[in-house]
Amino acid sequence: MTPSDLELARRVALRPLADVAAGMGLGPDDLDPYGRDVAKVRLPALARLRERPPGKYVVVTAITPTPLGEGKTATAVGLVQGLSRRGRRAVVALRQPSLGPTFGIKGGAAGAGHSQVLPMERLNLHLTGDFHAVTAAHNLLAAVVDNHLYQGNPLGLDPARVAWRRVMDVNDRALRNVVLGLGDPQDGVPRQGGFDITAASEVMVLLSLATSLRDLRARLGRLVVGYTRDDQPVTAEHLGAAGAMAALLRDALAPNLLQTSEGTPALVHTGPFGNIATGSSSVLACQLGLHGADYLVTEAGFGADLGAERFFNVKCRVSGLTPDAAVVVATVRALKVHSGHYRITPGRPLPPALLEENPADVEAGLGNLSRQIGVVRGFGVPVVVAVNAFPGDHPSEHEVIVRAAREAGARVAVSHAVARGGEGALELAQAVEEAAHEPGDFRFTYDLSDPLLAKLGAVATRVYGADGLDVSKAALRDLRRFEALGYGGLPVVIAKTHLSLSADPRQRGVPHGWRLPVREVRLAAGAGYVYAISGEMRTMPGLPAHPAAERVDLGEMGEIVGLF
Amino acid sequence: MTPSDLELARRVALRPLADVAAGMGLGPDDLDPYGRDVAKVRLPALARLRERPPGKYVVVTAITPTPLGEGKTATAVGLVQGLSRRGRRAVVALRQPSLGPTFGIKGGAAGAGHSQVLPMERLNLHLTGDFHAVTAAHNLLAAVVDNHLYQGNPLGLDPARVAWRRVMDVNDRALRNVVLGLGDPQDGVPRQGGFDITAASEVMVLLSLATSLRDLRARLGRLVVGYTRDDQPVTAEHLGAAGAMAALLRDALAPNLLQTSEGTPALVHTGPFGNIATGSSSVLACQLGLHGADYLVTEAGFGADLGAERFFNVKCRVSGLTPDAAVVVATVRALKVHSGHYRITPGRPLPPALLEENPADVEAGLGNLSRQIGVVRGFGVPVVVAVNAFPGDHPSEHEVIVRAAREAGARVAVSHAVARGGEGALELAQAVEEAAHEPGDFRFTYDLSDPLLAKLGAVATRVYGADGLDVSKAALRDLRRFEALGYGGLPVVIAKTHLSLSADPRQRGVPHGWRLPVREVRLAAGAGYVYAISGEMRTMPGLPAHPAAERVDLGEMGEIVGLF
Repeated sequence: MTPSDLELARRVALRPLADVAAGMGLGPDDLDPYGRDVAKVRLPALARLRERPPGKYVVVTAITPTPLGEGKTATAVGLVQGLSRRGRRAVVALRQPSLGPTFGIKGGAAGAGHSQVLPMERLNLHLTGDFHAVTAAHNLLAAVVDNHLYQGNPLGLDPARVAWRRVMDVNDRALRNVVLGLGDPQDGVPRQGGFDITAASEVMVLLSLATSLRDLRARLGRLVVGYTRDDQPVTAEHLGAAGAMAALLRDALAPNLLQTSEGTPALVHTGPFGNIATGSSSVLACQLGLHGADYLVTEAGFGADLGAERFFNVKCRVSGLTPDAAVVVATVRALKVHSGHYRITPGRPLPPALLEENPADVEAGLGNLSRQIGVVRGFGVPVVVAVNAFPGDHPSEHEVIVRAAREAGARVAVSHAVARGGEGALELAQAVEEAAHEPGDFRFTYDLSDPLLAKLGAVATRVYGADGLDVSKAALRDLRRFEALGYGGLPVVIAKTHLSLSADPRQRGVPHGWRLPVREVRLAAGAGYVYAISGEMRTMPGLPAHPAAERVDLGEMGEIVGLF
Repeated sequence: MTPSDLELARRVALRPLADVAAGMGLGPDDLDPYGRDVAKVRLPALARLRERPPGKYVVVTAITPTPLGEGKTATAVGLVQGLSRRGRRAVVALRQPSLGPTFGIKGGAAGAGHSQVLPMERLNLHLTGDFHAVTAAHNLLAAVVDNHLYQGNPLGLDPARVAWRRVMDVNDRALRNVVLGLGDPQDGVPRQGGFDITAASEVMVLLSLATSLRDLRARLGRLVVGYTRDDQPVTAEHLGAAGAMAALLRDALAPNLLQTSEGTPALVHTGPFGNIATGSSSVLACQLGLHGADYLVTEAGFGADLGAERFFNVKCRVSGLTPDAAVVVATVRALKVHSGHYRITPGRPLPPALLEENPADVEAGLGNLSRQIGVVRGFGVPVVVAVNAFPGDHPSEHEVIVRAAREAGARVAVSHAVARGGEGALELAQAVEEAAHEPGDFRFTYDLSDPLLAKLGAVATRVYGADGLDVSKAALRDLRRFEALGYGGLPVVIAKTHLSLSADPRQRGVPHGWRLPVREVRLAAGAGYVYAISGEMRTMPGLPAHPAAERVDLGEMGEIVGLF
């Protein structure tokens, strides 16, 4: 029987974290240990490392994924292990997994097989408490908002226009829509509200984008919780809550240091939701890794149209960092699905036909790969295609992908990182090194000075390949309102399905002749962007009939079992 | 100007935590550091220390307090500092402060002046994340409960009899009563619910009373979340959630090591609510300190009638530990209030007359002191009265208390621990040493084999001094039900106002001729007791018009300011 990821994780003898840190130029005084084998890197270390020239900045993205994901994290981890085996100092920067899905369908995760982040149990359960700090800061502001209404509402906040929900790091559908403040008059002012999962908190994105404690504090102050009856935004600063939120988040701003299955440094920090936010690890983790290594490899959520687009247009704009190369992960499985001949349903077994040798169906799905390569090229960033190999793949199927990638002018390598660790990613590492040394020509999709509507249109047409936008009247009105209030210079994020290049999750491959609907636009003034909602966006997952929680327990020696 | 507690805390040069731990017989391998100057003590260390004979077990309790509190924590901290100056190895075990009140009225706190637990900012903000772990475990169970209803309710849980609320570590009155599961059919089953503050979670008490990981896991399995329509209890074990909860709480079971203002070891662990639970630090922290020192000093919440009663009848029963002495803290201020001539309202200045020299009014309030001494004596535990000196006190007023304590046959000392640290608690330390070496005669108020109603009656009459119980029909029915379900052998907790020996918070001194109303009884099967509700018990605080959060911020160097 194939050993589980948890079993493989347990077999690894971890390197002393001080040795791992030393490889990044960090000394013992730069670390605050948080339990065994996990530490926070103190922020002053970053200021010191900045005096060293930065390494190469590599982002791992993907073709349009299936609901199962295509292994970006394992590829990113395998890549740094491969680079390390080639004698390069390499660091991976990843998002922290969310607790909710760990007990829901997904189970715990960061990488797979011989390309994981360790210690796995710590990674998946609490880690250093950063998510809990986000929950606490977010909900403190929510309590202050409702207290403001209760205490006479001196700022004149319109109770019907409170936009600040509450958050909890749990999959709990019953909290999506609630009525608050019931009971006696001293139990608050009744109104509608609801909870999102903590990863969907604007505070989480804000933490991931903050470039310093001072910047964190300023962004918190700019958080808009709602509007007055005469349409003026009410902020966390107006409510006097931003300072206390910053105090709660102070330690959470420091990136967490762990290690990969082969002992290379892994920075794990923040976990902004992929579908309504940037979906990438923190700016500070990237800066720390870049100045502490020859290569910093990070991951952007979902396919290149969503994750890489936001990574480039939002995160790189904030950080001022220029990416040197992008890895586009492709799998035989997903390309077959893009042929339109298969369908994958999470929680159900794969269709057996999907596992049969069928290079023609892989070929039929290649349009999506070419298109996503084109998305990255549109930003002027060199591309390496990584074929994430699965045990059931057939060489003929890999060959089809390799050929297509070469024809599209991209570098390409088959990655066996899951099965063989860094040794299985040596070719990929070499290709990434070559790509990262090509002269770059990085450019954004739009200028910040463009109108908000034009920015949305540029992403939809030039990145997604839509024919145009269909914007609701309410969204148009709100875009004008945000511009009138002085938020017109922000970048944009589009909340769109990740299962298709289009806005329709059923459209595989490269959909043509479609327009992007924009039902609603929202302001994330603290995080620093305006986001458009296109389709149904769930921000609080539910549990399945048999949640992963049922399998998790303590073993005889107090060890955690069943995490996946 | 008098320096604030935070300023005094900052001036202290902390000892290396390894040195602090060494004084308890703990080596570096026994500690898991969590950031600077805070560590968790690994549970295997306790198994090793148990081979050493235990030291003396001292509990700090008080007369019936005013709403401002009488300084039990500062006295406990000062006492270990005093014992330490007298050459004894002494450890203090305290509850962790709750985050909610830190941003509400109360501000941050553990001790005061020169008798605090440090580092103060870490203590008050997150610490090692134990409270967050309790929140996560509690709410995971809540999500599983609502998911069970949503997924067809195979166990037949009666939605109207779900007893498991949700928790959050924030003062948020709007969450006291909510309606959940609104929205579309896929958003869950609508029903009434609500949130308590995390300190009021049964998981918090359970964590404080657990004697091992195995015991923790078993208690979690016994948690009753509600009843079926045919009156059978539904537990966390039935729902398959107890294992995952144990995984979330595994690290939280290890006590946290900090230090006092004078570098003596301080174990800070768990924070069960005083009014509906035991209100005392953990069993494991007490065991660890007892076997690691000559003296383990811990605190029991509120006055002796509430905190010490539960400490003796519930916590000591679980731990098997026998207390050697009890300190009853008294203040001039509170005794004057017990004269019935003054009234203290939190958030308002003290009445000026209260600060004038008036030994006669102190004398008039002494009945409460004698009665609370009697409460402790009823358990066969030697008593030391500690007069917690305030700057405005007059020697004549102290003399009245000292004389009365001696006449009651108790040892007594004036403690200047707040103003002078351990040096101000030398006399108290000496008195405690003497008392702890008296031959003890520890006994419980009731046998576990007594009927539940008899146990409640014994506490009400023999501890509180009530004439009897007035039990509602619903409560009587539920007591019988609990006994029929096999919970009759549990100890009891009575949720009663802490501001009076009676059930009426306005009755000062020693109320006579009153009966204890029991409106409702509830089962805490995981924590392991049945509790009776007598009067209004708030389990989710609210924020005041100007919460302490408004003063908290980051300073120029990123330091936390305004915490109090």
